[in-house]
Amino acid sequence: MFKKVAILGRHEDPRVAEPITTLAQYLVQAGIEVLAAEDMSLDFEARRLPEEELSETADLIIAIGGDGAMLYAGQLARRGDIPLLGINRGRLGFLADVTPEEMLDSVGHVLAGEFTTDKRLILEARLERPDADDSTALALNDVVLQRRETGRMLDFVTRMDGRYVNTHAGDGLVIATPTGSTAYSLSCGGPIIEPRLDAVVVVPVAPHTLSDRPIVLPADIGIELRLLERENTRAEIMADGHSMGEIRPQDKLLVFASETRLTLLHPPGYDFFGILRSKLHWGHDSRKRDLPAEGS
Amino acid sequence: MFKKVAILGRHEDPRVAEPITTLAQYLVQAGIEVLAAEDMSLDFEARRLPEEELSETADLIIAIGGDGAMLYAGQLARRGDIPLLGINRGRLGFLADVTPEEMLDSVGHVLAGEFTTDKRLILEARLERPDADDSTALALNDVVLQRRETGRMLDFVTRMDGRYVNTHAGDGLVIATPTGSTAYSLSCGGPIIEPRLDAVVVVPVAPHTLSDRPIVLPADIGIELRLLERENTRAEIMADGHSMGEIRPQDKLLVFASETRLTLLHPPGYDFFGILRSKLHWGHDSRKRDLPAEGS
Amino acid sequence: MFKKVAILGRHEDPRVAEPITTLAQYLVQAGIEVLAAEDMSLDFEARRLPEEELSETADLIIAIGGDGAMLYAGQLARRGDIPLLGINRGRLGFLADVTPEEMLDSVGHVLAGEFTTDKRLILEARLERPDADDSTALALNDVVLQRRETGRMLDFVTRMDGRYVNTHAGDGLVIATPTGSTAYSLSCGGPIIEPRLDAVVVVPVAPHTLSDRPIVLPADIGIELRLLERENTRAEIMADGHSMGEIRPQDKLLVFASETRLTLLHPPGYDFFGILRSKLHWGHDSRKRDLPAEGS
Amino acid sequence: MFKKVAILGRHEDPRVAEPITTLAQYLVQAGIEVLAAEDMSLDFEARRLPEEELSETADLIIAIGGDGAMLYAGQLARRGDIPLLGINRGRLGFLADVTPEEMLDSVGHVLAGEFTTDKRLILEARLERPDADDSTALALNDVVLQRRETGRMLDFVTRMDGRYVNTHAGDGLVIATPTGSTAYSLSCGGPIIEPRLDAVVVVPVAPHTLSDRPIVLPADIGIELRLLERENTRAEIMADGHSMGEIRPQDKLLVFASETRLTLLHPPGYDFFGILRSKLHWGHDSRKRDLPAEGS
Repeated sequence: MFKKVAILGRHEDPRVAEPITTLAQYLVQAGIEVLAAEDMSLDFEARRLPEEELSETADLIIAIGGDGAMLYAGQLARRGDIPLLGINRGRLGFLADVTPEEMLDSVGHVLAGEFTTDKRLILEARLERPDADDSTALALNDVVLQRRETGRMLDFVTRMDGRYVNTHAGDGLVIATPTGSTAYSLSCGGPIIEPRLDAVVVVPVAPHTLSDRPIVLPADIGIELRLLERENTRAEIMADGHSMGEIRPQDKLLVFASETRLTLLHPPGYDFFGILRSKLHWGHDSRKRDLPAEGS
Repeated sequence: MFKKVAILGRHEDPRVAEPITTLAQYLVQAGIEVLAAEDMSLDFEARRLPEEELSETADLIIAIGGDGAMLYAGQLARRGDIPLLGINRGRLGFLADVTPEEMLDSVGHVLAGEFTTDKRLILEARLERPDADDSTALALNDVVLQRRETGRMLDFVTRMDGRYVNTHAGDGLVIATPTGSTAYSLSCGGPIIEPRLDAVVVVPVAPHTLSDRPIVLPADIGIELRLLERENTRAEIMADGHSMGEIRPQDKLLVFASETRLTLLHPPGYDFFGILRSKLHWGHDSRKRDLPAEGS
Repeated sequence: MFKKVAILGRHEDPRVAEPITTLAQYLVQAGIEVLAAEDMSLDFEARRLPEEELSETADLIIAIGGDGAMLYAGQLARRGDIPLLGINRGRLGFLADVTPEEMLDSVGHVLAGEFTTDKRLILEARLERPDADDSTALALNDVVLQRRETGRMLDFVTRMDGRYVNTHAGDGLVIATPTGSTAYSLSCGGPIIEPRLDAVVVVPVAPHTLSDRPIVLPADIGIELRLLERENTRAEIMADGHSMGEIRPQDKLLVFASETRLTLLHPPGYDFFGILRSKLHWGHDSRKRDLPAEGS
Repeated sequence: MFKKVAILGRHEDPRVAEPITTLAQYLVQAGIEVLAAEDMSLDFEARRLPEEELSETADLIIAIGGDGAMLYAGQLARRGDIPLLGINRGRLGFLADVTPEEMLDSVGHVLAGEFTTDKRLILEARLERPDADDSTALALNDVVLQRRETGRMLDFVTRMDGRYVNTHAGDGLVIATPTGSTAYSLSCGGPIIEPRLDAVVVVPVAPHTLSDRPIVLPADIGIELRLLERENTRAEIMADGHSMGEIRPQDKLLVFASETRLTLLHPPGYDFFGILRSKLHWGHDSRKRDLPAEGS
């Protein structure tokens, strides 16, 4: 099934280095060709390639780390349209849902073809500037408008599906995928979105108007955002936490679903709701008298 | 296009009776056969039928009133699978989006074939009882679990897509369609859902666990709910505000998307976001210094 | 310091019976006269009295159980204006803040005069009915307006300090003390209030108007509530979870701070914020990458 | 009563200039000495002083403008401990609660001694830096920790009353007075606080932990905040929207109630709840069927 497997991870972190080495040895013994980045200083048998070439050669990427490592590996995986399996470095992650203890067992299942495929929506953001080149980015979690070096609220206008929606005032706006709905969007009051739903959620951050609430949209509806001209305010656009640069009143941000998806692989037993329960402390309500540990 | 049009409305209300009569006269002059319920005491030329037969004979229903009248008319419309047009009695409604002033003009457009079609998701709820007949209901807005004659929290378990999700404690649970997302669900902290999205939102009411947040699901995922055995608590299930009866620990509530949809017609110019702006006072933020009335 | 100590607790619960017996023996050995309710079937040396007479004789009440047991014991304690010490049956409670393991040690400190005194605000509620006797109640946590046997929203009017405040629509209203601010009020979106603050919080439950938000008031401001006349709606008033009876449109509910307080005793080391951290899972954020366990 | 009245306002704004001139003429005719800033370019009879000397000479300040103008005038007023009356430039403000139409009538009442006095809590913030001078500021609304030039969450620790409270992760923290509780704090999920309550509210901004909720504290409890060391994050402290400078992990922010208060004067008929209703659109719920305009 998978013949060439690339291993990714922040090898400087000993909690990552150890499972990387263990995994590489396991794969080699299983007759798999292991690929790794040139600068990965760990000692194991692997074909070394510049990182950006890994996705052209591999037919599976295994990333070891937290959800941040998965966001990074996801960029390579979707570029080459190859699947991604995530091994967590410690606690369970939303994306890296295999623990180090389960690693070899889970990888064995995946190599044997026993896995489920999970196609995740990716956002494409384009910042159009009349006087400069457009800036574009992809985001697995979210595209965010945020204040920059200012104590003042931002005023901005949204359009969806080509129609005017609202004139907002506040700290900014989050446009999140289902994957991103459990990250920053959730902290701003957005709902959890089941990953299979082809939807995007638009969540105002600290909105001045109290009825300015999250809106969930079909993913094929394009979202447009413009800043209003205000003295002493500056704002920027972030995609998965990385700056796309400043947005000014003459600019226009367009966000829409990408045609490509990120393919995640999960070993048998994957349970999105189980991860939610674990991450959100559901069922461990110590404010409560006597919550029975009730399950399935 | 439409030859037989049924008119529905609470004719005892003078704000409804007047537009009903105006509309009936207009339709007759336009050569349309007007249908009305037997018990509608207004004086206009119409074929009188028992209400439940209206949807078998008409090829369009026009309902006059508020969103409550639309919920009622929607039951007839979806039973006969015929389209529904809503005329508001006063202020703009989420469902009845034509004002009395625009009525004749809008109806003229619709009769001339100038309209958009808006298929709304309907929920089917089945309350399974081991010792009695099942109770079933349809809901255009929401299916709600609520406390009954008790000051105590409810404890209940949800399953989605056949898998255990959470053990909740609180006042209850709202399962809402996109149509219902702007009703009770919104008051409980749920997001607004664009009506075209094939999704359902599950919103805990006053949840004891603060991380028990709204979840948006693909509409084809079935939702199951069971009450836990607790002394002195009683609960019931409501569908669009009507009781389906008490739910007890041995019962099971199943909620899933119905195969039929409700077909709404909108005259040209229909704008879901415009209705949101109007209903939620967007753009009229008097807490704010100087919000410019900015549009398009 | 304390010569006569009453022990209270649900003795049918073995997790309560065991520490009760242990505590009674400890007190007798320390030369304290132990008082207990006549119907407490446990076998230890104690002066048995009808429960309602305990507070007239004792100069300290020790309650064993959860926060529910403390609410109950608090009624006796404030009637006799004697202090209350709470021993938890299992997990830490907001009110019963001594664990079974610490019990004897903590009680020893208290008997030796080493404790802090914590005066808690109590609400007085009076339901005035033109055609019947007034109903009154005291509440350590909250006075709540809630729906009764109805799927419809309640419409009601609030006045504070003699002035009209708002016309609300929704599921009801919570009027909570600082003690109650971490109970039902918190689930409805209310803030946490430090117990020393002489304040009351008024929290709408699932309010229809999205800007209908919690208001924190000085405790000496009286709050008045009236129901509006609506078809098919019924409502009742709860005080600390016990019904004060139905409220009808002709009735008036008055809520104000009681002149008496409940005196809680805490052994050395009491830390309100520590209890909050423990109850609300602060510092155990598993959604987060790497939250350092940072303290003091 | 008042012999020397200083007039303040942004005279470049014609909506402010006109009432300033009207007011000055009215005061002169009433035999009051009018004081104005040297740089106020309007043509009316007044004693011109450098702005910072106005509060040393006047015994009343009248500010014309929005709530922003009131924040500014408040700084002068509290420095000289003289009362402040606010005239709004257009819509009703939370602080400037006299409309232009009512201006002369209201000022007449105040000059005749018919007014209520409203003492507002002021926060004092001190940013202690081991390697530089401390930075201090006063705030009538709020002291805010916010991110600066970063897409990453801030991690920070709070202490209240000398005790460790919580380790937070999120966009920042708002520490607001009752006056500020209806400004930014409200947008971040904080409660409304009645202005007479001697309290401060601490509101996390987009907190990562969902149970990290607003806390209302007695005003005499000091609040301490420290940033945790994180790569690539920077943060700053704002007082009433003005930067106090960057805060670094080695710094400490202290916030406590100032000993001085700001004295606002209100003409007869002042109604805090009436202003709330007006600003928050209470009673104009167009989502609702038929909310009766019910009052007193």
